[in-house]
Amino acid sequence: MDIPFATIEKITKYLRCLKRIRNKKIKFVSSQTLAEHTNVTAEQVRKDLAYFGKFGRTGTGYNIEKLAKKLEKILNPKLNWNVCIIGAGALGHALTNYPDFKKAGFNIIALFDGDPKKIGNKIGTAKIYDVKKFSAIIEKKEIEIAIIATPENAKEEIEQIIAKSKIKGIINFTPLTLDIKSKRKIPIIDVDLSQKMYILSYLITKGKRRQ
Amino acid sequence: MDIPFATIEKITKYLRCLKRIRNKKIKFVSSQTLAEHTNVTAEQVRKDLAYFGKFGRTGTGYNIEKLAKKLEKILNPKLNWNVCIIGAGALGHALTNYPDFKKAGFNIIALFDGDPKKIGNKIGTAKIYDVKKFSAIIEKKEIEIAIIATPENAKEEIEQIIAKSKIKGIINFTPLTLDIKSKRKIPIIDVDLSQKMYILSYLITKGKRRQ
Repeated sequence: MDIPFATIEKITKYLRCLKRIRNKKIKFVSSQTLAEHTNVTAEQVRKDLAYFGKFGRTGTGYNIEKLAKKLEKILNPKLNWNVCIIGAGALGHALTNYPDFKKAGFNIIALFDGDPKKIGNKIGTAKIYDVKKFSAIIEKKEIEIAIIATPENAKEEIEQIIAKSKIKGIINFTPLTLDIKSKRKIPIIDVDLSQKMYILSYLITKGKRRQ
Repeated sequence: MDIPFATIEKITKYLRCLKRIRNKKIKFVSSQTLAEHTNVTAEQVRKDLAYFGKFGRTGTGYNIEKLAKKLEKILNPKLNWNVCIIGAGALGHALTNYPDFKKAGFNIIALFDGDPKKIGNKIGTAKIYDVKKFSAIIEKKEIEIAIIATPENAKEEIEQIIAKSKIKGIINFTPLTLDIKSKRKIPIIDVDLSQKMYILSYLITKGKRRQ
């Protein structure tokens, strides 16, 4: 089944909403509530969730626990991924300690840097390795996802080491437009935090309360 | 004019796409190209941009420079915001140095922390202040946006200091669901980096290349 990308993006938002209400004492959530928290219509929520089977019951809504588990499985069927971070600066450090990655099944087990002063150190339980050993460590530790958190001038080096390695997917926190020459399909998600700032400034100037 | 939130979100993506191609030698971009980079249809691009006036010319497409400037003005009409970060740990540090904030007109001019060892230090040109002095510093330095980058256990303290201050909008990098008791409308944008991980893992398992 080929699910539209926009649906997948919305599913991550529904899941976030479910996780937020999970620990409260309510058991069910309506499509209306999910809709309000994610800026879509209740009809759209029902339509999106219908892609994955019949979850809701008319009148009672969706079972929060069951729906959250189902959506997690759709989004992350593997449930556990070994992840590395390229760049052991402040951003690499912060991302290594980001608590929600581990909760979601993404385990940061290694960092890579070119600075001899950093190589060999640890951030939490994750060791910092020499970026020259990238391919070998990736293979040995069965790492599939790389997060790019380097300075902007490292573009070519990163493209080359990724292309030569067995990395399967990339989250890019830099403004770089990466062009990885590989016969394999390597999906890249670009994260631009300024987008969030723009949205906030729009909401402030328009006098709106919620995203 | 009340523009749907989904349109605003897409506008930030079009802008990101324009910024990426801005420095290349092409002058015009088609709605088709914008669509491919942002996972919508060309028709949707034209419809979204039509909210803000007539930009494109049939056959030649949109003038990249002009469209980027126009979208920036829509998203950030004020063009310059003073921003602070609450929490001077690794994440606060990384966000202070995030180069794209400044480029987009968001200037991080102060951080706040409760740790006496950090108070008084600087990250780049931004000073770390005692969180107890939040309201006074916010007012003195005309800071309007606060980025939350604290540990998870700081919820109540943050809610209280924000409610008492003149902060106009919040970007929340923690998993906290903030409930700010204020008569003013204070928009909150929650950033959940795990969403990006979920989308990547979905793309990897489905064998797709691009977001």
